[in-house]
Amino acid sequence: MPNLQAIVDEIYARLRPRLGEGKVADYIPQLAHVDPKTFGMAVVTVDGAVHTAGDFDVPFSIQSISKVFTLTLALGKHGETTWNRVGREPSGTAFNSIVQLEQEEGKPRNPFINAGAIAVSDLVLAGHTPREAIGEIVRFVRYLADDESIAIDPAVAKSEEATGYRNFALANFMRSFGKLDHPVEHVLGVYFHHCALAMTCTQLARSGLFLAAGGRIPGTGHTVVSRQRARRINALMLTCGHYDGSGDFAYHVGLPGKSGVGGGILAVAPGRASVAVWSPGLNHNGNSLIGSLALEMLANRTGWSVFE
Amino acid sequence: MPNLQAIVDEIYARLRPRLGEGKVADYIPQLAHVDPKTFGMAVVTVDGAVHTAGDFDVPFSIQSISKVFTLTLALGKHGETTWNRVGREPSGTAFNSIVQLEQEEGKPRNPFINAGAIAVSDLVLAGHTPREAIGEIVRFVRYLADDESIAIDPAVAKSEEATGYRNFALANFMRSFGKLDHPVEHVLGVYFHHCALAMTCTQLARSGLFLAAGGRIPGTGHTVVSRQRARRINALMLTCGHYDGSGDFAYHVGLPGKSGVGGGILAVAPGRASVAVWSPGLNHNGNSLIGSLALEMLANRTGWSVFE
Amino acid sequence: MPNLQAIVDEIYARLRPRLGEGKVADYIPQLAHVDPKTFGMAVVTVDGAVHTAGDFDVPFSIQSISKVFTLTLALGKHGETTWNRVGREPSGTAFNSIVQLEQEEGKPRNPFINAGAIAVSDLVLAGHTPREAIGEIVRFVRYLADDESIAIDPAVAKSEEATGYRNFALANFMRSFGKLDHPVEHVLGVYFHHCALAMTCTQLARSGLFLAAGGRIPGTGHTVVSRQRARRINALMLTCGHYDGSGDFAYHVGLPGKSGVGGGILAVAPGRASVAVWSPGLNHNGNSLIGSLALEMLANRTGWSVFE
Amino acid sequence: MPNLQAIVDEIYARLRPRLGEGKVADYIPQLAHVDPKTFGMAVVTVDGAVHTAGDFDVPFSIQSISKVFTLTLALGKHGETTWNRVGREPSGTAFNSIVQLEQEEGKPRNPFINAGAIAVSDLVLAGHTPREAIGEIVRFVRYLADDESIAIDPAVAKSEEATGYRNFALANFMRSFGKLDHPVEHVLGVYFHHCALAMTCTQLARSGLFLAAGGRIPGTGHTVVSRQRARRINALMLTCGHYDGSGDFAYHVGLPGKSGVGGGILAVAPGRASVAVWSPGLNHNGNSLIGSLALEMLANRTGWSVFE
Repeated sequence: MPNLQAIVDEIYARLRPRLGEGKVADYIPQLAHVDPKTFGMAVVTVDGAVHTAGDFDVPFSIQSISKVFTLTLALGKHGETTWNRVGREPSGTAFNSIVQLEQEEGKPRNPFINAGAIAVSDLVLAGHTPREAIGEIVRFVRYLADDESIAIDPAVAKSEEATGYRNFALANFMRSFGKLDHPVEHVLGVYFHHCALAMTCTQLARSGLFLAAGGRIPGTGHTVVSRQRARRINALMLTCGHYDGSGDFAYHVGLPGKSGVGGGILAVAPGRASVAVWSPGLNHNGNSLIGSLALEMLANRTGWSVFE
Repeated sequence: MPNLQAIVDEIYARLRPRLGEGKVADYIPQLAHVDPKTFGMAVVTVDGAVHTAGDFDVPFSIQSISKVFTLTLALGKHGETTWNRVGREPSGTAFNSIVQLEQEEGKPRNPFINAGAIAVSDLVLAGHTPREAIGEIVRFVRYLADDESIAIDPAVAKSEEATGYRNFALANFMRSFGKLDHPVEHVLGVYFHHCALAMTCTQLARSGLFLAAGGRIPGTGHTVVSRQRARRINALMLTCGHYDGSGDFAYHVGLPGKSGVGGGILAVAPGRASVAVWSPGLNHNGNSLIGSLALEMLANRTGWSVFE
Repeated sequence: MPNLQAIVDEIYARLRPRLGEGKVADYIPQLAHVDPKTFGMAVVTVDGAVHTAGDFDVPFSIQSISKVFTLTLALGKHGETTWNRVGREPSGTAFNSIVQLEQEEGKPRNPFINAGAIAVSDLVLAGHTPREAIGEIVRFVRYLADDESIAIDPAVAKSEEATGYRNFALANFMRSFGKLDHPVEHVLGVYFHHCALAMTCTQLARSGLFLAAGGRIPGTGHTVVSRQRARRINALMLTCGHYDGSGDFAYHVGLPGKSGVGGGILAVAPGRASVAVWSPGLNHNGNSLIGSLALEMLANRTGWSVFE
Repeated sequence: MPNLQAIVDEIYARLRPRLGEGKVADYIPQLAHVDPKTFGMAVVTVDGAVHTAGDFDVPFSIQSISKVFTLTLALGKHGETTWNRVGREPSGTAFNSIVQLEQEEGKPRNPFINAGAIAVSDLVLAGHTPREAIGEIVRFVRYLADDESIAIDPAVAKSEEATGYRNFALANFMRSFGKLDHPVEHVLGVYFHHCALAMTCTQLARSGLFLAAGGRIPGTGHTVVSRQRARRINALMLTCGHYDGSGDFAYHVGLPGKSGVGGGILAVAPGRASVAVWSPGLNHNGNSLIGSLALEMLANRTGWSVFE
């Protein structure tokens, strides 16, 4: 076992001079206000050790990373019929493209592009009110992280709701194909709120640990999902977790991961650890530039790539 | 370590009643003539053990699986500049679609779709004659498999050349964007010939073993590629190796793999083994239906999925 | 001058046995309730003569034909800057496709596809309330037809509003590109209402007469638009007036025209007459099947095609 | 009747200061060598009068304008079954786009985009050798213009053949869908040669006169096509004759027309005249910039727009 804390410290030291690279998402004011030079990292191993660096305990907007948790919930409610509403293939186009949605009659390519996550929000609703569904998601993430302090940032949720025209377009488009069961406003209410979850790197890494540990939370022994389902969610993260940069992330890092425009990335080293990084500057594919480098360094130094 | 021979035997026994399912590729007569009920499998572990079942020693047309070997050669010649001519992202559309090629100005999405493999053939040519390049590819595969009997089926190559209008369209299209260095006829000559390589499951599994063994051929100790490059080729196989069914294969099998329309699949279990299966009936994505099931069973029974 | 009434009578007599062919639009109940065997026709010449047949005085939902009138209003308010928001080229895809809208960053191809007409509704709003804009449109059509009895069918408008998910998608999509100035709900309020205008063939033919008469209303001598603008609106109707069947209509009929899914078509014979036909069964392009045939017969017998 | 010679003289005088605007096509050297400041115009009325200006008797490469003549020949050989191989709808995308061809399984949208004209060349071949088909086309144009001196520029044909990768892509693509009857090389041989026809403005205007005269050549009284077919070819020219600028041309000029990248435009004023202009600088849609302006001025001054 490598000396993880030393590796994490080295990564932070080497990337420190480059902090500020990339472009901070500015499509909602709340994201644009973040200091572009922040960097946080937390590695939680399956045996419970935690290694951190930088702003690991500063909450940030996890945005699309939340899609991993809503997918897990939807699979728990609907099992494999989930895949009647959303596909499992990489999208091959920009992350919010509407084109493929038309070609495929309102069925999004995968649960991690916006359209797919909206379809998943519809599945999580399952007849409940948006408030109930949002409550369920928050409770689920708190349970995974074993941390009752996790909460949604209402200003972020409200801001996305006020400007999310493209998501309204996607949802109405799917609805026109009969691919949503609930009113567009309800579905997007759930969607905008779970994207507005604010978490620290440590909380996020803890929340993803079950995916590294065969579906169980090592600390409590609770089973979240079956071993097979954990494996499959990891597969989806690897093939689809970074929008149109998923191939690139697999090539350079080699770990299942999910990024968010807030600059966070959750990565899973099966059997080893769950890792969260955060640095707000994004690369041209909309993924954290410094965060991706940090994970590439970690994979190189630990040999954790799933491909070796 | 599981009893691999018992697992292989069980897989064969359980799939035997289903042989013949799927649709045999018929776009060239040579492929259509194959008995749809054939099934072969070979597992070669990094410590040299070989486990086989069925028609493991019957040569078949490896078709697109050859793209793994030509990519390896192109990377050897051009290193990372290879990626100036071909991308690393899943394609998100049918395997020979020309649409994305227009959007991205003649640069194919990845080296495993037809357009990308044609670009790779151009890189392998590197100023040589088609005959020389084809010779180099055959020698490389013989070297990997340590088997001088591997050869190209000239009838298959000729047949593809006579009917491959879509590949001529792709190549001319790329040439119109200035993305091929050699004459279209030369590039496609190389392409059609390497797709026509005929190999047995055992030969194929041996040829892919370096990808499971950190770039080295365990038997001889020869280094084919660096550990990093082996990892990266595996990543490309996982994200792009099964056309528009790559996500599905990752979801169900969880191993880097590359399929061919001849019904073969090469799969890599990093650190463990190289596996070849062959069964001609294809699923709707153009991948071996029974072969995919065999690999899913193998991954389930061995725990070799990279995602757990 | 041909004996127009005899021609109109003959057209009706010959098409009578075919009434009921085509498929009545059923996406909103109000349209589906129409008797599929109705047929009406009215020819109003520039010298004021009116020739009619069948159900020429039964009001029907003019739907997209109203886009000619809103475009005329928008051009009156914004002149050539109208074309900053909407193009003038045939769309080349199905009438409500969203694909081209993404490629062209929210600028619709022309004012007669749904997206384009929504952009035009936004221009007609011009800072007013939806109620005011709708009132202005109704007054304009009454003025053109010199008939104060023309009105909107509120049940149709309400029904479209309740089920028009795709139009909500289009409008939100354009808004996401900053291509709408008013709230989506306001713009679509105007759009759904003008599409719900109910008119008889005679009223409709009278309303379009200014386009046949160099921009003037022959009866009153009022100038609606300049001679140049009348010509240009006719050009748009000819190239874009029948969705993806515009080329076909030009080929067979050879008159500027605009169809609606209610089964109506307004056609303009420059210098000669304005013609309205109505028959609810649609062809595969969404244009009135019998109505198109009636206009083809009329053009053949009168020699009014603009192409001879 | 306006004083046409005075109008033509005025157009030339007013456009003279702007000669050189636009971008001369440079994808083949023979086109790039042309003086960008040349301008020619010829108006031939149905009663035989000829009015000219500038370099009206200098031959230029008519390029895509030839597609009008090959379509006329194909319709003569195959009648309405021509439309089984090529559509009649505007394309809505750039002139040589391959995307729509994939969506519509190898059937081009209309006979005036490259793919469509290649399909028409295949129809003109009709079992003959390329040499025979090319001979037939040349004889046909000579007959229309009553001028035996018209010829193909072999250097242009050869140059296009050597660099026309995109056309090879299109033809192979259509062949892959079974939409060409003859070998790709034969079809393109015909295509490249008819595009290389060199004609003067006077010759070109004479060749198109039958379309203005109900299908007959006024001077000889010969019937080339029926009145209906002339009308229909005019309709196709109006809706599809200027690539992705067809709507714009209809809006500004209002005459059926066909442009070529050599800078020529043939326009038809039904019942009045046939007009040819030539000026090599192209606008962003690939149509002669000055030529389009000249035709707009002509239509304005004569009132020949079909839309008034």
